This record gives sequence, structure tokens and C-alpha cells, in this order.
Amino acid sequence: MTDEQQENPRAGVSRRRLLGITGTGAAVGAATFAGGLGLGRATADDSVPQGGSRTYPFYGGHQSGVVTPAQDRLHFAAFDVTATTREDLITLLQAWTLAAAEMTQGRPAQADETSYDAPPADTGEADGLPASGLTLTFGFGPSLFRDAQGKDRFGIAARQPKELARLPHFPADKLDPSRSDGDLCVQACADDPQVAVHAIRNLSRIAFGSAEIRWAQLGFGRTSSTSTSQATPRNLFGFKDGTANLKAENAGDLDQHVWVARGDDPRAEWMTGGSYLVARRINMHLETWDRTSLREQEAIVGRDRPQGAPLSGGTEFTEPDFAAKGRGNEPLISATSHVQLAHPTRNGGAKMLRRGYNFTDGNDALGRLDAGLFFLAYVRRPSTQYIPMQNRLAQHDGMMEYLQHTGSALFAVPPGARAGGYVGEVLFT
Amino acid sequence: MTDEQQENPRAGVSRRRLLGITGTGAAVGAATFAGGLGLGRATADDSVPQGGSRTYPFYGGHQSGVVTPAQDRLHFAAFDVTATTREDLITLLQAWTLAAAEMTQGRPAQADETSYDAPPADTGEADGLPASGLTLTFGFGPSLFRDAQGKDRFGIAARQPKELARLPHFPADKLDPSRSDGDLCVQACADDPQVAVHAIRNLSRIAFGSAEIRWAQLGFGRTSSTSTSQATPRNLFGFKDGTANLKAENAGDLDQHVWVARGDDPRAEWMTGGSYLVARRINMHLETWDRTSLREQEAIVGRDRPQGAPLSGGTEFTEPDFAAKGRGNEPLISATSHVQLAHPTRNGGAKMLRRGYNFTDGNDALGRLDAGLFFLAYVRRPSTQYIPMQNRLAQHDGMMEYLQHTGSALFAVPPGARAGGYVGEVLFT
Ligand code: HEM
Ligand code: HEM
Repeated sequence: MTDEQQENPRAGVSRRRLLGITGTGAAVGAATFAGGLGLGRATADDSVPQGGSRTYPFYGGHQSGVVTPAQDRLHFAAFDVTATTREDLITLLQAWTLAAAEMTQGRPAQADETSYDAPPADTGEADGLPASGLTLTFGFGPSLFRDAQGKDRFGIAARQPKELARLPHFPADKLDPSRSDGDLCVQACADDPQVAVHAIRNLSRIAFGSAEIRWAQLGFGRTSSTSTSQATPRNLFGFKDGTANLKAENAGDLDQHVWVARGDDPRAEWMTGGSYLVARRINMHLETWDRTSLREQEAIVGRDRPQGAPLSGGTEFTEPDFAAKGRGNEPLISATSHVQLAHPTRNGGAKMLRRGYNFTDGNDALGRLDAGLFFLAYVRRPSTQYIPMQNRLAQHDGMMEYLQHTGSALFAVPPGARAGGYVGEVLFT
Repeated sequence: MTDEQQENPRAGVSRRRLLGITGTGAAVGAATFAGGLGLGRATADDSVPQGGSRTYPFYGGHQSGVVTPAQDRLHFAAFDVTATTREDLITLLQAWTLAAAEMTQGRPAQADETSYDAPPADTGEADGLPASGLTLTFGFGPSLFRDAQGKDRFGIAARQPKELARLPHFPADKLDPSRSDGDLCVQACADDPQVAVHAIRNLSRIAFGSAEIRWAQLGFGRTSSTSTSQATPRNLFGFKDGTANLKAENAGDLDQHVWVARGDDPRAEWMTGGSYLVARRINMHLETWDRTSLREQEAIVGRDRPQGAPLSGGTEFTEPDFAAKGRGNEPLISATSHVQLAHPTRNGGAKMLRRGYNFTDGNDALGRLDAGLFFLAYVRRPSTQYIPMQNRLAQHDGMMEYLQHTGSALFAVPPGARAGGYVGEVLFT
């Protein structure tokens, strides 16, 4: 043991040793001391008790975070790639993959081999917290394939999926460019927001010099159930949201409506097992909604507020009966109700996997909460499953009076990475 | 039963009945149906399982949310009062009191006596969620007492506490007026953010016409333990935060440092049993911090990162020994370290109850996370417990290089309301 170690026991002790990853001969003197330091996340014995030791695999045929039962909290980030070479982009995806594989298992983003004289490899704010069901889901925006001038940025333009085009302008859209689009996206979902924020921060840090955050969105409460094991949560209109959602348990539905299949797009076979992610930041005019009668609110949605039952009767999971008539021979579920306009029978059978979150970002200049629903939906074919429905809703949905779409993006979500590979590898090989 | 009720069973059913609060004779026909609707929050049998059925009393000698063990999530709002009469201000405080007493017990904000033709009294997004430890803590800003011209707005100027003055400008402050000050504040803390957001939204709705939100802040993770029963959480610098905080278990400390005592301020005896709340939005330059060596980070804080132990040795709760010397006779804890500069022995014995939260509000134009610590601290005397310390830190704290204070406010937090009374009543009687 050197003098330095005697005087300041931590001086020169490598953090790799502190992590307990290895103990070299020279470290024995310090190891006793280091024993108590354990920087590893999952192992910290004084962990903040938040529950949530649940973990989801990172590697696999599909990415996690799509049909994974929607976790409670979200941190979403869209990135602009500043790297200019294909190699640098691949290096970024490889580094992200390694970090994501660690963090989703409740470990620090990067194993730490540095000394006290280097910055810590992980930023530390999730030390002691369990994995909390963290999933990290990566996507590619249309602009990754071609820049605004149509130039092939990374030699992948020929493989751009035909479904991956910027979303069109929809009626009443009032989009903020600084909350829209992006070359890459990362959806971090977890049951503890600190874990989700930690993940985005560390990925953003790893991207330093190759990509930077274009926009980010925190979601404080899930607005959809995506599994029959989950109770249906409520959105900021106070209504249950997710009742008629696709559910992870119905594998047939997922294959039909969520996962891209071989042959869907011959020039983008790499998307097989992937999906498309529609992201829409939708502000909700809560003050106006709150001044609307319950009758009107329910008519707009097409379901009742207490239970989420269709206005044609029954309980939450009863199928709506759009033919049912009430007083004056009026339909019990209005033709301009959200539920009827969005229903598969009115959309050529189209369904989507909704996975949105409530958000609030402070307030606007008029003292109203800047709040709403960060709509996320996974579909196999945006052109048939999202775009026509959004057009129909934008034109006819009575709810539109209370909504304003302020952000928009579409991403191709590649299949899962294989262990030893990296997310999106299929696009580059 | 009318035809209307037969054809649309919910038509004309009062929501008061749906709430199960009362059943009048005329309602019997519908009651069967209504039985299944239960809008009450705590009783919904299909509640989203989030844990957190913990409740704290609203009425009492002190307001809850001060020494209450810090809950995980925060929604904070500062309001500008638009009402111009004392009566209207009192009416607002009365309405807020009633709603707060309901919501903190896991019930809707307002009992619902309206029909389907009126807006629901509660906005509904917390239906089915437990109380989740919700506390609502109310405060009065200096501007409530006198406007910018010094005019007595509500006949209370003579009773303005001498401690309740706008915080001075501190070195390096870069305050955004739209994130600072306010006539009133509400601190909503809960273990479920949806419950905290619901509370602020409903209070803001109740305030319609009397007060509007000036600024609001969501905090996604607590940065302080305020009870010996809590593990110490971490801030976004990755360090444990709250180690040397005042703890609710030390009643002597609370009486000495948190609660205003009789005689503290003869012109504001109404503050007896209350406290002062300092709110500072502090942006943290995470990217710069993340490029700093662990050694430097620890030197800046004065504690180690893994455990939060003082650099003079020991474990988390060992008292720092500022006299301890290391190599070259240098102090092990630097004189410019945050912990030494903030320590009571360096501040004439001053202590405060810190109750802050990590925040992230998207990103800035440079693609950096707009993130930091929303610093909240409760003190008996801002003039001796906060202002000198903040001046000292702003001038000497090595951490300041990584911080930017962007919001600032001070509020007088009156004692708790008595059942049947309202929060702040002591100021008006
Ligand atoms: C802030 C905006 C929105 C709100 C508040 C909202 C709310 C709701 C509610 C309360 C339901 C009924 C419960 C359920 O089945 O989940 C619902 C259903 C649905 N919504 Fe939305 N929604 C919004 C935007 C959208 C958008 C933009 C789309 C797609 C373009 C969409 C597509 C659907 C679909 C497909 C259903 C299921 C319809 C069915 O099969 O019955 N929603 N929504
Ligand atoms: C983003 C800004 C800040 C960060 C990241 C931060 C972080 C920390 C950390 C890591 C500790 C050591 C652990 C503990 O005892 O809690 C600490 C202690 C403390 N901080 Fe801060 N702090 C910040 C701002 C402030 C401000 C503005 C004040 C008051 C003006 C303050 C007052 C204190 C006090 C009184 C202690 C306890 C000192 C002791 O008795 O040992 N901090 N802070």
C-alpha cells in the first residue's frame, strides 16, 4: 500500500475494483475498504425501496417496450445525428446497445474501468434503484436515411422502408418543429421515472459527438393498458384509456397489426420483426373540457366515465353496439364519437397498439397547464393503420375541439438485437 | 322512472347518487344501475394497482407536507391572485381547504351534486387511484400582502411577516421572472405523480376567476430524505442527497429550525406553527459535471459518491471531520466543498429542512437536458437560515460552476387548518 492510499484510502483505487468486478493483487490492501462501496445498482444494500425489481430482456427477436405491459413512466428522446460517417453511426448504435443491455438489467450504463481521475462511467443517479421494469426501444426516423436535400446520409437510403416517410400534415395540426421528427429515437419506459431519466441521460452522454437530443418528453402516467393483466388507467380527460387496445396476450393480433412480417416491404426486409412508432404530442385543453357537461363528455368519447363502458350499455369490456338506438331514435353512441370513429369496423379493420402517456410541462402564458397526452402507437403499416384514422379523427372527431397536436414523428423500430450484435444491425449488413 | 331513464339509463342520474353519497326517493329506479358506477376514488374495485394507500391528515396544528416523510413525486404551482377583494380571497382559501381535505384522503376534489348536464365536479383522472400519500401544502408570497406599488391588496399588509420579503438577488442568479415569485403556492407531493398532478389541476380549476397558475414545476424524484425511516435518494449529480438533513424524528430540531414559534414576530403571530418555504429552480449542467473526474466531483461535494460518506472517513452518517488532514497536510474535506460551506458549524448553527426534487423539462436549444434540482427548504427564519448560506454558497461553493439558479420564490406557510376552518384563517381573523 502506498503512502497515498494510507492517507486517503480511496486515492488511486480503480472504480472497477470498487464495482467488485475484479480484484487484482495490488488492490488487496484497498479491497477491504472498497468492499463497502459497491457502486453496482442492483446490489446496493441501502437501495431506496421503490419496488420494481422486474426486468425485461434487452436482446431478442423483437425489441422490448413495444408489447411489454406499459410501465408507469416514460422519458422519450428524439436525437439528431451529428456523425457523418456510416462507421460512426454504427459505433453509436453499438455503444447504445451495450449500455441498454446493462441498464435494462438494473446495472450501470457502462462498466467502470477508470480511476478516480476520470469521470464516472455511469452518472450515478440510479445507483441503488432496481431495474424498475426499464425498457429501451430504439427507432430510426426518415431523416436518417435521406437529408432534406434527399441525400443518402449513411449509405442506407436504398433500404428506407416505403412506410417510413414524414407524417403528412393533418387537419388542425399545429406542430412545433422543435418537438417533431428526429433521426433516432429512444423510448425509455420504467415504473420509476428516475430510472427512465437516468437511461436517456446516459444514452445522450454516450452519444456525445455523434448525436444530440432534438426534443425530449417526460410522461408521468401511462394512458394505456397493453396487457389483459393491467387495469385500465385514465387520461387527463378523466376517462379510462386503453380499454379496446391491442393486448400483448393476443399474439394473433400482434402479428397482424404490430409486427412487420417478411415480405411486407421487399426493399426493407430488415424491418421483419420490427414495427413503426407514431409519436404525437397532443395538448389537451383541460380548462375547456372541464367546463363541458358529463353528458357531452361521454357523448364525445362514446363511453361512460365511471367504468369506461360503451354508451350502448354493458360494462367496460362489452363490445360497443353502434346500431343501438335511444330516445328519438338517436344512436346511443354518436357517429362522431371518438370510439366509433376509431373503431376497427369503421377503419377497414385497422387496429393499433397504443402506448401513450399523460404529460404536463409547466403552464402556458395564460396560466393554463401545458398538459395532454403524448400519444405513442405501434403499427405494422402507418399508411393504413394510422394515417387514414388520424385524418378521419381530425375531420370528424368531436374531441378535436379540445385537442391540439403540437408534435409529430414517425420512426421505424427495427427488430430486437441479437446478443453480441447491436440494435439496427440488420439495416447495415 | 321516466321514459328517458328507460331508454338511456344514465340520463338524469345525479352524480351525487353515483358517488353513493346519498340516495333520494326519486333515485331508487336508477340506483341499481348507479351501484356499479361508483365514481369514488378510493373505493373503485378496479383500481390501478399502484400501491400507496397511505394517507396523511389535512387538518392539524401544522400543515402536512413539511415534516411528512418526503414522497417520491412533486407537482408545485405558484398562483397569481386575480380576485380583488378580501372576501373573494377567503372564499378561495375555503374552497381549496375543502378540496384538499377530500383529495388528501383519496376522495374526489368536490362532492358531486350535479346532473349529467353539468361538468363533473372532479376531473376524474385519479379515479381508482389510492391517496398515494398526497399532501397539499399552501403558502403566501410577499406580493399577496402588498402589490408592486406597496398597496395593501387584501387588508393584510400590517400583518405581513418581517421574514416574508422577496429573496434578494444572489451572486450568479439568472432568474426567469416567469418561474419566480407568486401570490400563493401549492406544493403537492405524492408517491404517484398522477395523483399530484390531479390535485394541482383541480385546485387550479377551483381557483378559476380568483387565481391562475403563474408557474408550475413537476419533480420526478425526491432528492431528500426527511425521515430516519427513509433511505437517502440521489440527485442528478449521482450523489446521495439528504444525508445530513433535518429529520422528522428529531422534534427538538424541528422546533428550533422549522416551525415558527410564538413571539418570533409580534406582528405576525398568525405564523406560529407555520414555516417559510424557499423554492429555487436550480439547473444543473449535467454535461459538464459528467466530464469531471470522480475525484473532483467528490471534492466538490465533500462526500464520496458510492456511500455518501464524508471524505474525512467513516460511513454515510459519520460526522464530517473538517480538521482531518491528508497528504501534504491538505484538509480531506476542502474548505470550498458544498458540505463544509453548508454545514451548521460554518453557518452559526443554521439548519434547514430540505425537501427538493429532481426535475427535467425537455431540453434546451443546444440539445442538453433542461434538468436539475427544484430546491425546496423549510425554515423558521429565512434571514438567518437561508439567505446567508445561499450567499456563501453562491460565492465560494465549487459546485456553483455546474449550477444555474433559474427560479426563486419565498412563501409563508401558515400553520395547519383546524377542522371546520380554512388554511390561513389565522391571517384573516
Ligand atoms: C388526446 C387525445 C386522445 C384521447 C384523450 C383519446 C381517448 C380515448 C379514449 C377515452 C378511448 C376509449 C377507451 C379505449 O378503448 O382506449 C379511446 C379509444 C381509441 N382511440 Fe383515442 N384518444 C386520443 C387520441 C387518439 C388518436 C390520435 C388516435 C389515432 C389516430 C386514437 C385512437 C384510438 C383508438 C383506435 C381507440 C379504440 C377504439 C375502439 O376500438 O373502440 N386516439 N381514445
Ligand atoms: C443543485 C443544487 C444542489 C445540489 C446538487 C446539492 C447537493 C448536496 C449534497 C450531495 C449534499 C450532501 C448530502 C446531504 O447531507 O444531503 C448536500 C448537503 C447540503 N446542502 Fe446542498 N445541494 C444543492 C443546493 C443547495 C442549496 C441551494 C442549499 C442552501 C442554500 C444547500 C444546502 C445544503 C445543506 C444545508 C446541506 C447539509 C450540510 C451538512 O450539514 O452536512 N444545498 N447538498
